[in-house]
Amino acid sequence: MVDFREIGQRLSNWGRWGDDDQRGTVNFITPDKIVAAGGLIHTGKVFDLGIPFGAGGPQPGGGRINPVLLVSETGTDQDAFPGAFHYADDYIFMPLQAASQWDGLAHVFYDEKLYNGYPSSNVTPHGAHKCSITEMAKGITGRGVLLDIARLKGVEWLEQGYVITPEDLDAAAAAQGGVSVGSGDILLFRTGWRRKFIQEQNPTEFMAGEPGLGLACTEWLSQREVAAVCSDNWAIEVLPGEIDEELLPVHMILIRDMGMTLGEILDFEELSADCEADGVYEFFFCAPPIKFSRAVGSPINPLAIK
Amino acid sequence: MVDFREIGQRLSNWGRWGDDDQRGTVNFITPDKIVAAGGLIHTGKVFDLGIPFGAGGPQPGGGRINPVLLVSETGTDQDAFPGAFHYADDYIFMPLQAASQWDGLAHVFYDEKLYNGYPSSNVTPHGAHKCSITEMAKGITGRGVLLDIARLKGVEWLEQGYVITPEDLDAAAAAQGGVSVGSGDILLFRTGWRRKFIQEQNPTEFMAGEPGLGLACTEWLSQREVAAVCSDNWAIEVLPGEIDEELLPVHMILIRDMGMTLGEILDFEELSADCEADGVYEFFFCAPPIKFSRAVGSPINPLAIK
Amino acid sequence: MVDFREIGQRLSNWGRWGDDDQRGTVNFITPDKIVAAGGLIHTGKVFDLGIPFGAGGPQPGGGRINPVLLVSETGTDQDAFPGAFHYADDYIFMPLQAASQWDGLAHVFYDEKLYNGYPSSNVTPHGAHKCSITEMAKGITGRGVLLDIARLKGVEWLEQGYVITPEDLDAAAAAQGGVSVGSGDILLFRTGWRRKFIQEQNPTEFMAGEPGLGLACTEWLSQREVAAVCSDNWAIEVLPGEIDEELLPVHMILIRDMGMTLGEILDFEELSADCEADGVYEFFFCAPPIKFSRAVGSPINPLAIK
Amino acid sequence: MVDFREIGQRLSNWGRWGDDDQRGTVNFITPDKIVAAGGLIHTGKVFDLGIPFGAGGPQPGGGRINPVLLVSETGTDQDAFPGAFHYADDYIFMPLQAASQWDGLAHVFYDEKLYNGYPSSNVTPHGAHKCSITEMAKGITGRGVLLDIARLKGVEWLEQGYVITPEDLDAAAAAQGGVSVGSGDILLFRTGWRRKFIQEQNPTEFMAGEPGLGLACTEWLSQREVAAVCSDNWAIEVLPGEIDEELLPVHMILIRDMGMTLGEILDFEELSADCEADGVYEFFFCAPPIKFSRAVGSPINPLAIK
Repeated sequence: MVDFREIGQRLSNWGRWGDDDQRGTVNFITPDKIVAAGGLIHTGKVFDLGIPFGAGGPQPGGGRINPVLLVSETGTDQDAFPGAFHYADDYIFMPLQAASQWDGLAHVFYDEKLYNGYPSSNVTPHGAHKCSITEMAKGITGRGVLLDIARLKGVEWLEQGYVITPEDLDAAAAAQGGVSVGSGDILLFRTGWRRKFIQEQNPTEFMAGEPGLGLACTEWLSQREVAAVCSDNWAIEVLPGEIDEELLPVHMILIRDMGMTLGEILDFEELSADCEADGVYEFFFCAPPIKFSRAVGSPINPLAIK
Repeated sequence: MVDFREIGQRLSNWGRWGDDDQRGTVNFITPDKIVAAGGLIHTGKVFDLGIPFGAGGPQPGGGRINPVLLVSETGTDQDAFPGAFHYADDYIFMPLQAASQWDGLAHVFYDEKLYNGYPSSNVTPHGAHKCSITEMAKGITGRGVLLDIARLKGVEWLEQGYVITPEDLDAAAAAQGGVSVGSGDILLFRTGWRRKFIQEQNPTEFMAGEPGLGLACTEWLSQREVAAVCSDNWAIEVLPGEIDEELLPVHMILIRDMGMTLGEILDFEELSADCEADGVYEFFFCAPPIKFSRAVGSPINPLAIK
Repeated sequence: MVDFREIGQRLSNWGRWGDDDQRGTVNFITPDKIVAAGGLIHTGKVFDLGIPFGAGGPQPGGGRINPVLLVSETGTDQDAFPGAFHYADDYIFMPLQAASQWDGLAHVFYDEKLYNGYPSSNVTPHGAHKCSITEMAKGITGRGVLLDIARLKGVEWLEQGYVITPEDLDAAAAAQGGVSVGSGDILLFRTGWRRKFIQEQNPTEFMAGEPGLGLACTEWLSQREVAAVCSDNWAIEVLPGEIDEELLPVHMILIRDMGMTLGEILDFEELSADCEADGVYEFFFCAPPIKFSRAVGSPINPLAIK
Repeated sequence: MVDFREIGQRLSNWGRWGDDDQRGTVNFITPDKIVAAGGLIHTGKVFDLGIPFGAGGPQPGGGRINPVLLVSETGTDQDAFPGAFHYADDYIFMPLQAASQWDGLAHVFYDEKLYNGYPSSNVTPHGAHKCSITEMAKGITGRGVLLDIARLKGVEWLEQGYVITPEDLDAAAAAQGGVSVGSGDILLFRTGWRRKFIQEQNPTEFMAGEPGLGLACTEWLSQREVAAVCSDNWAIEVLPGEIDEELLPVHMILIRDMGMTLGEILDFEELSADCEADGVYEFFFCAPPIKFSRAVGSPINPLAIK
């Protein structure tokens, strides 16, 4: 049986950026990487990769629910104001990870340790006192690369349980004109799982499992010094997973051992079509989290700009 | 007395981008502007302009409250999982405009019309059926310019009620090496009001009024074809305002007549210091809203990248 | 075709208790009725008729959701207190009518009028300025009578779409030893629909329709001067209803025309068994709403005391 | 220095009603007590003791906030329904102990034990697995007695920090015609602190401290076998308290050692005036909690019926 702890220990970045680091692999995005990424903006086309946050979202209920928007002001019943002014206002109630989101580094842990060795007791009812998503306040921005695995395989979407391998990632890069994935890059890989949801509108089915990264990909990501990884599925990794006895081992290795921030439940449909059309799979990527104090995750709407 | 309706009608952009337009002045950001803005990334320095979303925020209570973060999972009490996996999760309840935010075009209206002539009845308990912030899904991204009015005046912050004039804007640009503000630019102007809050930590005082744009600036913004305007105060415009009988007339003109999206309660302290140090007041700006379906506003964490 | 407006007009209580009345048929509960009801307490047995408010509730999602309880304090991470004190605390987010509830008189209306002729414009984004549930602040308390229709019919639960008739109500009363239903009484009728939910745990099925009161029962309730009516289904009345073109006509007549407060999604299982055992179907009933300002409904946990 | 643990141990009810008891002193309310209480209903007058739940409540912000009511349906924008039907609906977000409330037995603890010796680890992010307020589902109902300490002292309200003594309780009973307080009774004592809030509308002042029970009263309550105690202040006990080094020692003794449920932030103004007028300070009392699964407290609107 695969020992995920052995992999995690081997790929561990604990201490790599100092004993007090809380940002992990985002540290690979050095200023020169951002400058180089700026040079990828050639056409001014913008792709918004967030999905809608609303009642029609992918949460089937249970631990998380879809966002509830409630309108506190519609403009009626505002006679107390002087003059002509009327306004609308609204409230939201939601799990921070209800839809498109960053998983902060406090989101997943094991053996009572967070990334970089912080005790997991840092996560309390008052939030994450270490490794909060606010540590990513300056966003995750730099060079983004799309690897379109569904397109590689010629399917609308990969099947639930399909294990994406390092060979798949390499094959996709090769098929896409040999696009490189290197240090400080943000990797976006497309499974088609979002397209499945759009077509079927079935949250229970969407959440029942998914195609996604296999354990072997953690080494691939580590070798290339990828800064963050994003997907159109809901948990990056394949579900059911490759180890019967362990839930979400790829999460445990990527987040807790390597310190990698994950972007989930994104929509690459428009971007994928454009990349296929122009053959360009790299772009400027910008995804600032909202700075929810001590939160473990944040809703996002990443932009890819070509 | 100034007739704000006359100004609004004169500066109106209704129909300018078609009868079904819901994006307003953001249309000034053409793809070539975004390409040019990409060329402003020279050092890779990133500035996050959002403020923290938490209990220590600027809402004194009343119509809006500060965000309430509630932790649904801390990792304790998760014995049902197989293996080592533990996770943390959290919920948020808040007004969408509790802290750093875009005002969408449905946020403010008068005479029963939204921007571009849409009946205000489009705003219902189910949200904004026209001019929702989701119309800005591809973000407001392009060339940002900071005009630092507090620095121009040599004060920590402008006084409550200080009316910023077109002459102030021009003088700041001149003092900053003649930085230009032109078509499709996102204007950030700094009043120091955020610094006041940081120092005083007094929400009631912060919200009691503010320095901000006077009515005459609406014409200045219109002439230059500014795409969006952002500030470190909470309502862009001066409060108390210049017209006794009208609440927030600058909002009414900018949002409803001109179709301009406003970014409020931002933090320019770090950016301002850097601009003063290197003399560069222009940058790549990227502020995607979260796509809350039919919402009138969205929390944001804009990035300025030099 | 039945004209529900004709019935409503005939049974209307508008003006009966004054032009400014907002309490409707609860006015039938005069002090002497409460004193008499006190005399029904013979054994000290208490039955709690509210259902649990939690994630396992009957809401399948959509317009309403099940209550979300979030724990803000567990006692960990409270080192700032002097001494030994630790505490737990919690928040709730929910539709006020997610589970056991009073429908206030502002909950349902037609032809732009609430009960007693108040314009429906009294219901705004700020709540119900007339006929709020707070008008029932002193509770609905008095003599309760259970009519057990499922028991009468010898079934676990009546079928979805079963129309309860005045004859059913009379037959149940006769079968139960001739228990009377008179002026100021609170009528509880049991369909078994709650038992169905307990057995099946299927919110979608529970909400898809239900057995319930037919239109003819409105006259029966009016003649007897019933103060309020409660049930173990979710909408008192039969669904699908008896008029194809009208949704929830019994609601419209009872609430808007007669001014009757409705108690829904209750649990009569334990009470029903006890009544069957001792042959006593009358009791002291007490169901104070929580005084949510300007709310149209309130969660309740009615007590029946024998 | 007073040792609260010594008092707690001496007055402890752990094991008194079995090792698996989770209801504590409410067990004193035997069926015969409820029957006797029913006999106190002589006039049919009802007094609602809950305060309004709304934005104008007593929470100054911080750990708890005032309830936020949001209207999800106003009746506009409902054209999809067949026929005439329109409805209003609303949501609430609030701390369960924002206003009038029961403190459940899991609310307060020390030395890692809840009432009856349950480990405090039973309180988790998923709620209270022992001693939840749902253990009181059948309400706290029985004979209520009002002791009006403010009236006894001839003041509108007692001063912040005033320590109510057993002698005060006895003197009030004597001044009120010798009303008794005995086994299974629910004690309501009035400090006038609610009147202060009504007059001053100052949440910060209301919460800054309060008059309330001193430590010596715990013994008085124990001797009389009181079932529950309620007040018009927000924490039953005097604040600042009598022991510098311990926060809320009366809570710790009453809730954790004795197993007594506390009713806080109630309004006795109307009831007090009536009792003064007719000289009757005893009544039927009924306060069912809403059955929030695993909650530590519940909003209430207790009824006193004479």
